[in-house]
Amino acid sequence: MPKNRSTKDLGLSSNERLYLKRNSISPFNFPLIKNLTSNYVKFYTFHAGFKKKHDDLLLAIFNSKVRVVAAYSKTSTPSAPIIWDKKNNKGFCKVLIVNSGNANAHTGDKGIEAINIYAKIAAKKFNCTLNEILVSSTGVIGELLDQEKIIKTYPLIDKSRQKNLLSAAKAIMTTDTFAKTAIKKIKLGTKEVRIFGFAKGSGMIFPNMGTMLAYIFIEANISKSILKNLLNSHLDQSFNSISVDGDTSTSDTVMLFSLADHEQKKIINKTEIKKISLALKDVMFQLALQIVCDGEGISKLMIINISGANNYVQASSVAFSIANSTLVKTAVAGEDANWGRLIMAIGKADNRLDQKKIKLKFGNLLVATKGQMYNAINIKKLNTYMKNKIIQINVELGIGTFKRTVYASDLTHEYIRINSDYRS
Amino acid sequence: MPKNRSTKDLGLSSNERLYLKRNSISPFNFPLIKNLTSNYVKFYTFHAGFKKKHDDLLLAIFNSKVRVVAAYSKTSTPSAPIIWDKKNNKGFCKVLIVNSGNANAHTGDKGIEAINIYAKIAAKKFNCTLNEILVSSTGVIGELLDQEKIIKTYPLIDKSRQKNLLSAAKAIMTTDTFAKTAIKKIKLGTKEVRIFGFAKGSGMIFPNMGTMLAYIFIEANISKSILKNLLNSHLDQSFNSISVDGDTSTSDTVMLFSLADHEQKKIINKTEIKKISLALKDVMFQLALQIVCDGEGISKLMIINISGANNYVQASSVAFSIANSTLVKTAVAGEDANWGRLIMAIGKADNRLDQKKIKLKFGNLLVATKGQMYNAINIKKLNTYMKNKIIQINVELGIGTFKRTVYASDLTHEYIRINSDYRS
Repeated sequence: MPKNRSTKDLGLSSNERLYLKRNSISPFNFPLIKNLTSNYVKFYTFHAGFKKKHDDLLLAIFNSKVRVVAAYSKTSTPSAPIIWDKKNNKGFCKVLIVNSGNANAHTGDKGIEAINIYAKIAAKKFNCTLNEILVSSTGVIGELLDQEKIIKTYPLIDKSRQKNLLSAAKAIMTTDTFAKTAIKKIKLGTKEVRIFGFAKGSGMIFPNMGTMLAYIFIEANISKSILKNLLNSHLDQSFNSISVDGDTSTSDTVMLFSLADHEQKKIINKTEIKKISLALKDVMFQLALQIVCDGEGISKLMIINISGANNYVQASSVAFSIANSTLVKTAVAGEDANWGRLIMAIGKADNRLDQKKIKLKFGNLLVATKGQMYNAINIKKLNTYMKNKIIQINVELGIGTFKRTVYASDLTHEYIRINSDYRS
Repeated sequence: MPKNRSTKDLGLSSNERLYLKRNSISPFNFPLIKNLTSNYVKFYTFHAGFKKKHDDLLLAIFNSKVRVVAAYSKTSTPSAPIIWDKKNNKGFCKVLIVNSGNANAHTGDKGIEAINIYAKIAAKKFNCTLNEILVSSTGVIGELLDQEKIIKTYPLIDKSRQKNLLSAAKAIMTTDTFAKTAIKKIKLGTKEVRIFGFAKGSGMIFPNMGTMLAYIFIEANISKSILKNLLNSHLDQSFNSISVDGDTSTSDTVMLFSLADHEQKKIINKTEIKKISLALKDVMFQLALQIVCDGEGISKLMIINISGANNYVQASSVAFSIANSTLVKTAVAGEDANWGRLIMAIGKADNRLDQKKIKLKFGNLLVATKGQMYNAINIKKLNTYMKNKIIQINVELGIGTFKRTVYASDLTHEYIRINSDYRS
């Protein structure tokens, strides 16, 4: 993605613009969190041998067991880690083990057995019970995972090898081109509380969810039920609002941890929970946005705003019909203001729309209204607009009050190149 | 698409193999119907000026008004011709007017008015009522249609300019690379009855339906209700079983005409109707198969057979999840037997599947069973199989008795090239 295009005046919210402005490793200028460590969790990364080069294993070891809640892919063909975590975990975690390069998905009983082996040895080594271990895997589906690659790293863990958040994020990357991290700090009374996390994902990105792993930590003592509410409140507007290719993976996982000592008092004050919730929302959105902005082969980000829908499902259905239309995605990649394809994508999404009430804009530029092309359409401005790297597609359906915003990548030759040749 | 690959022994039905064997203009060796004309309908084609070169207008003029039934796109944003036909037509047709190069879609009242003008003049010129005119348009969405381009051809019609079925098919092409025609002859008593048709379509192909126009003619006197039953019986297994890009257009139309003199006796005999139905099924399937085989940028045809589903909707949902997965389509294009992506596409389609009961094959080669990779998987044979131009993906879900077969193109650099650059 070219770095020299302006992201100014694209009608973004100040929040969105903020991310895009910061100095960064990514084409969209996301903040780079260089040296974050935590007293509550220590990250260790290794090159275990699942990938040819680069670290491919993360062990996150908590000082004491911490509370955790998770959301998993809704697929009928979940990976072994998802099956295992759902069965074993009881809401607490002492050790999180994540590998990249092999998804341990559709590996049957052998896939589960591999986890049993490396998790049992981890439980013994790190002094916890088996149900305080959590595992994730991402990479190629269907290949057996060699647990020895993981086990052989356990003896190598010592304080001198502790890594920061960025290294943790790097160790779980697959086709990602940059590591995804986010942080937000809030004050609760006089105490600073950090909410931070990291994620990976670049292909198979679509609710619910893509090949998408995300781990988020709140440095506060929060009960399981509040933690679950917090996660569920923001899933839809973050990780479930992005699409790269409309494909949903077997491995998607979001985990939310409450980092706290046992003595620390539980957060029950509503104002404080609200503060945490807003910060968490921001962190989850930042991570989700980074994932879609690293969509395989992306040249432009589409921000699709639907308003005036009859209900939320209709708004979502129109938004994702646009987000996943290969004809819309290729037109955007080709810098072609081909609004006819948008009318197609809107029309096919729902058969209860009113064609004459639809207003369609690229950014602030009206292109279609009253069932036809806007009579003062400005082709020159449109052509200039399409050269931006963020393309806003604004659709007012005119039949209700419901809204939905989703974020999607375009579809380029680079996507085809990456995915026609992923395993070779 | 390379012509030198064998299509033998791909596990195709004899019917499918037959189409692929015949001498042909297409990469898949479809029959070329060179000189078909009919006493009941005369085809005239013109270069009206919607496209730069090549004929872009078809007038089909029936000897006398004939019975017709139609199926249209289920979009909320139908083209002006669909709105107009649905409102005006009463089940009879004297003149069919089809242009390519401009879809007259999302053109509002002006689009309807344009049709009113060219249809009224046609009704006068060809001596029929306005509701005996049928119109279709295909091409770019959103541009106003200049009716004068159509009207100016009316005086040019005379017997010497009559064209055959193939020319009619050519005049309605857009990004199609070959004209799509089909014919089947049956005997009813001593009389030969021909069922023939032509179609166009290459992008925006997905139920219900793509930028897909099809016109089919039965040389027999058939009542409206039987005609409607015949069309509906075979839509699902033909035009609604193909997908190029998962996109549904604003203009999709299938019309079925009963070509007969008023004196001719109506077909009411059940055996005869059954004969017609089987032949029609074949013609509709042939046309649909030609459309998907001309899918934009196609390098391989995927035939996706789902069996063992709990119900038809589930079988369809799994089939189209595979057909529309960009990750599956790019893997097939890359000749990569990446069955993990198939497990992903199967899993995301329905959350009531049983992962351990799924059997997945490429052609006859088992790749996954019992929730994991088949232990005697033959990678060498698989790699050879993936070089075929027709790739069969066979999925047995193991939880019921319902089946569905769909046909889809793969996703290549050529698709991106065509669609990033369609209007320039």
